[in-house]
Amino acid sequence: MEYSIRAANVEDCKDIARMIMELAEFEKISEHVKITQKDLEQDGFSKNPFFHGIIAEVPEQHRTKQGHTKIGYALYFYSYSSWSGRAVYMEDLYVMPDFRGNGIGKALMSKVAQLGLAAGCNQLNFTVLDWNKSSLDFYFNQGCFDVTANMGYHYMRCDGEALEKLAQP
Amino acid sequence: MEYSIRAANVEDCKDIARMIMELAEFEKISEHVKITQKDLEQDGFSKNPFFHGIIAEVPEQHRTKQGHTKIGYALYFYSYSSWSGRAVYMEDLYVMPDFRGNGIGKALMSKVAQLGLAAGCNQLNFTVLDWNKSSLDFYFNQGCFDVTANMGYHYMRCDGEALEKLAQP
Repeated sequence: MEYSIRAANVEDCKDIARMIMELAEFEKISEHVKITQKDLEQDGFSKNPFFHGIIAEVPEQHRTKQGHTKIGYALYFYSYSSWSGRAVYMEDLYVMPDFRGNGIGKALMSKVAQLGLAAGCNQLNFTVLDWNKSSLDFYFNQGCFDVTANMGYHYMRCDGEALEKLAQP
Repeated sequence: MEYSIRAANVEDCKDIARMIMELAEFEKISEHVKITQKDLEQDGFSKNPFFHGIIAEVPEQHRTKQGHTKIGYALYFYSYSSWSGRAVYMEDLYVMPDFRGNGIGKALMSKVAQLGLAAGCNQLNFTVLDWNKSSLDFYFNQGCFDVTANMGYHYMRCDGEALEKLAQP
């Protein structure tokens, strides 16, 4: 299937917001999604952006029944490891179900890896749900490893009232 | 115990590199540490830094036998959640063993939370080793929760030759 991979721009935020919700529905956590198109526009496309995006697009003749031609995305940001230095974190990787099996997910992830290496990064990090076997298989096939299972690192979070309280001196 | 908490500057990189190694030795992974003082100077204190730092310092009269007055640090960077938006990631939190139990770790983490909230972040994320019970207890006491245990998210990585290969179109 014909497709193209390119950097996201502010006009893509509507489709990114739509696909974030699709991914969250698949992950069964859509009630956690608070992000809006406007948040994405402000946070990703102003000075000092909090993230960057990559879009996968198909030609008009392959558009979905709903008329979508933007059918996959990756979000990433630069991060840092105190052991190995510059790193890139892939927050999301998604391809709409009808377009899977064409190498589009691989192409999106490859682009994030290219950009990371070009910026001097030594690592590409991300999280995956332990029940999502098809994603895990995909990532293992790319040579990724499970830091949680292999080394015992758990991902932790402070938010909401606990974060407000923690911030009090 | 008297101490102060302040933003790190480029002159702190020697002590940060020393404490990164101390933390890695405690975590039994010091063979993984490739970072140098020079890396930290370049990556944290040039234009578009990959991370920011906080230093805990004690007055001269409390300096260690080796003469250190910089006795704790936190490293953090801004990140992004596609569910909830702006986030801050705490890469490291460390206080030298002789100075623990004085609220210094809490004060460092509190500063990261303050800076995150001021930048519009809704989450403070980090990782912790599952065998490090004293750290886990400390974090749970601050109201943090274990995303891996509660939701099944595993931390994944691609590096080295696998990352080079992934980046090939």
